[in-house]
Amino acid sequence: MCAAAAAGMATSAVPFPPAGAGAAGAAVAAAGDAGADEPMYGDHDLVMSQAADCRRYADLHGMLAPGGAQVGERVWIRARVARVRAKGNSCFLVLRQGVYDTLQACYFKDKERPEASKAFLKWLSGLAPESIVDVCGVLQAAAVDSTSIRGAELGIERLFVISRAEPQLPFQLDDAMRTEEEIVASEATDRPWSRVPQEQRLDHRWIDLRTAPSASVLRVRSAVCQLFREALYARGFVEIQTPKLIGGESEGGAAVFTTEYFEQTACLAQSPQLYKQAAICGDMGRVFEVGPVFRKEKSHTRRHLCEFTGLDLEMEIKHHYNEALDVVHATLAHTFNGLEQRFAREMAAVRTQYPSRPARISDQPCIVHWEEGMAMLKAAGADVDETADLTTALERQLGELVAAKHGVDLYILDRFPAGARPFYTMPCADNPALTNSYDVFLRGEEICSGAQRVHVPELLEQRIVAQGLPLDSLRWYVDAMRYGTPPHAGAGLGLDRVVFLYLALDNVRKATMFPRDPNRLTP
Amino acid sequence: MCAAAAAGMATSAVPFPPAGAGAAGAAVAAAGDAGADEPMYGDHDLVMSQAADCRRYADLHGMLAPGGAQVGERVWIRARVARVRAKGNSCFLVLRQGVYDTLQACYFKDKERPEASKAFLKWLSGLAPESIVDVCGVLQAAAVDSTSIRGAELGIERLFVISRAEPQLPFQLDDAMRTEEEIVASEATDRPWSRVPQEQRLDHRWIDLRTAPSASVLRVRSAVCQLFREALYARGFVEIQTPKLIGGESEGGAAVFTTEYFEQTACLAQSPQLYKQAAICGDMGRVFEVGPVFRKEKSHTRRHLCEFTGLDLEMEIKHHYNEALDVVHATLAHTFNGLEQRFAREMAAVRTQYPSRPARISDQPCIVHWEEGMAMLKAAGADVDETADLTTALERQLGELVAAKHGVDLYILDRFPAGARPFYTMPCADNPALTNSYDVFLRGEEICSGAQRVHVPELLEQRIVAQGLPLDSLRWYVDAMRYGTPPHAGAGLGLDRVVFLYLALDNVRKATMFPRDPNRLTP
Repeated sequence: MCAAAAAGMATSAVPFPPAGAGAAGAAVAAAGDAGADEPMYGDHDLVMSQAADCRRYADLHGMLAPGGAQVGERVWIRARVARVRAKGNSCFLVLRQGVYDTLQACYFKDKERPEASKAFLKWLSGLAPESIVDVCGVLQAAAVDSTSIRGAELGIERLFVISRAEPQLPFQLDDAMRTEEEIVASEATDRPWSRVPQEQRLDHRWIDLRTAPSASVLRVRSAVCQLFREALYARGFVEIQTPKLIGGESEGGAAVFTTEYFEQTACLAQSPQLYKQAAICGDMGRVFEVGPVFRKEKSHTRRHLCEFTGLDLEMEIKHHYNEALDVVHATLAHTFNGLEQRFAREMAAVRTQYPSRPARISDQPCIVHWEEGMAMLKAAGADVDETADLTTALERQLGELVAAKHGVDLYILDRFPAGARPFYTMPCADNPALTNSYDVFLRGEEICSGAQRVHVPELLEQRIVAQGLPLDSLRWYVDAMRYGTPPHAGAGLGLDRVVFLYLALDNVRKATMFPRDPNRLTP
Repeated sequence: MCAAAAAGMATSAVPFPPAGAGAAGAAVAAAGDAGADEPMYGDHDLVMSQAADCRRYADLHGMLAPGGAQVGERVWIRARVARVRAKGNSCFLVLRQGVYDTLQACYFKDKERPEASKAFLKWLSGLAPESIVDVCGVLQAAAVDSTSIRGAELGIERLFVISRAEPQLPFQLDDAMRTEEEIVASEATDRPWSRVPQEQRLDHRWIDLRTAPSASVLRVRSAVCQLFREALYARGFVEIQTPKLIGGESEGGAAVFTTEYFEQTACLAQSPQLYKQAAICGDMGRVFEVGPVFRKEKSHTRRHLCEFTGLDLEMEIKHHYNEALDVVHATLAHTFNGLEQRFAREMAAVRTQYPSRPARISDQPCIVHWEEGMAMLKAAGADVDETADLTTALERQLGELVAAKHGVDLYILDRFPAGARPFYTMPCADNPALTNSYDVFLRGEEICSGAQRVHVPELLEQRIVAQGLPLDSLRWYVDAMRYGTPPHAGAGLGLDRVVFLYLALDNVRKATMFPRDPNRLTP
């Protein structure tokens, strides 16, 4: 019944050899499970859960290894056709599963059945690359080393198209996988490679993601989330989800998206700041969130987005914000070491196109105080304003100085000037011009910002008024502090930026599946 | 230096006994680390990371157990004052850490130092409950069984207020922890308990969260996320984040929040549907997302919210959507079994206020086809329209019928009528009036909706036009399917609803830290 069902599934397919070809048909039947009248190629019926599938498919991943399919076995494979190369009386395909695994498949003209065989060859060589096919054949030893499965290829017996690709792709996958170095080098030759512009990649992200480097960037992104949470679970953190539609701006300063919310106006949260603090007021002790953050900033830089994923944490402290810094450092160390150790395949795939080295991370946090950082910059001849935030150029310069002095690519600058930090930041006890705040820098760029927070309602109120912020929409937040609030500190990281900087990409958009910037809302 | 710093930290505190009390001061010094001139109680200096803390604090959790503080030890404890009870020449406090751990602390008038001791007693008895304190004392054996630490209490020697609570709480924690049954029973007596209305809880969520049941609901919510992801990681899924600001509505039907997006109008995503499918077009194979979902629905029910957390997954299938159903069922089984086994303390704490039993879950998915479900309802005398979605009442009735027949609280209804499902749902091959779609029901209510999707651009386009949806804003989505798209299926769950129904709460708002509905945007 199953064989009949399988045959029935490909009604628009061509029986091969044609029905009634007699002896040849019998020969094929003898070679496998296909009877003389069964279709050998063509378009598969639309897959719509007609019946339980009775094909057992082989995975390319693990093929030839113990437990995987072996040379000599007849297998069904579902895969994309990555390449088609017709060559005289033969046709070679490269089959691809996911982005890492490829296998050569081939068909040679059968002298016993010249007509049918020729038709099949012609049909095969017309397959549009990126089409998805079900192919049946026998694995045979062969000197192949251009695919991930080496030393074997599939001798094609039957092939059906599950989903046909348009003949023309928006760009070629090979073009999208070259290093900048290769492209630049080729420009001096008479066959320069074409460069796929970033906008074109993003317009057709579903094609770009089929390249191993781009896909691996997103797999690294997923791994960062996983490792980040692992480290926090191990330290007693609880995951929360705070509202993204809120009654007032979550922080002053950055521009905000608004929406009509029934009879009110809602803002899209610029951070989970106030709500994660409310969780601390509610004795949740240690909380974190992974969620979207919205900033209506008309920035056209390589590191700003209008929507990004925040990795936020907040925790009670006994006495000093260093307690939070220790957690942040340990979490990042766990994350980055975990990427190198447990996601080596993904890291290697990214590095084929975007070379980088593992970041150097100290066991204990490398903390540089603001005063010390300013002194280092001045000693290096930089022109600095000690009361204002660092410019991007100064950030980089300081990163280099710290890397040279301490041999690390991840460090913490703390005690930022009050003018550079939001109203809820606790001032320094020994210098009210500075604050109990910190940024974390990776390869010289900021990935994280945090601080001890003001946990006293009177002081909070004072600072809200002093900064000219609307006390009304922050009333609930101040009031939440009135019933005994533990001293607390926290941090906010940008996932997109962590990925972009750890992988040393040239643009944060490469770290986001569908980035949002002032010019990009689709797809 | 450390002792001096500790003393200096509480400058507004009262030395006890007063400076110059001579012999008595010496006696105290002999009893511990406090000298005659050191303050014994009062307001602690504002904690602002002045110096590294040199107090080692004891945790209530694990106290008296191996590794924890033992009877006879002098310890510092940071905790909330949960209760204050002055009684003649003594004062008893209950100290609370987090929501699960409590310890009795006591102070008795000292006959040797009557004046100072009386002043301390008076001061202690005036402490506002919910204040956070640092208290030092000696753990001593005592017949205490009303706190989580039994058989011991803390003999108070010194106590400083870290953060003072207002004297009047919005409601009493005890009132917020009673079962509905207790309250109803008390109404027949002359001392009925007051009920804390849900709106009042939500207005002061940071107080409500200090009750063990409410806090545990949110800890269970965190655990659901953790277990859900665990199950999916183990099955090769990759986590994605899709944009929440999108160029067009993600699905027809539900009302949508919009915002000005520079020169365009953006919608807040009603689901990650189109984008998770785009990830499948990009060969990500198996993806999931945990993220916010926005619905501008003016629903005032106990199970609808305007913003909730979606648990979404999407995966390639070879042939049948049952492949996805198996994953969904296994993931839910892992999650619910994990809650009972690994989060027993949290589950028990919820059940003290909201009684429920573990849901009965079969090893293999219990699948009921639409036709069969309708027949069951009709046989039970229900009035059903086979071409429309189920009403809530019919959902519950069918849930009871399935529970009675199959002995499960979790089942899947599949093959929903086409009119009840969105345009991207694959029709049934054997009956175009039905679709390859499914809902998962927990305790008779829907927690999950999913389907095989249409992966053919021509059919998609047809269905978009037939349903009168704007083809323009969906163009990118249809086009994403043009380059070979694997057959795929997926599901979307509502986290809030999963928690609410698994815990058998009376309202989904209890499962959300800061819920959003048409009347609630703050806090």
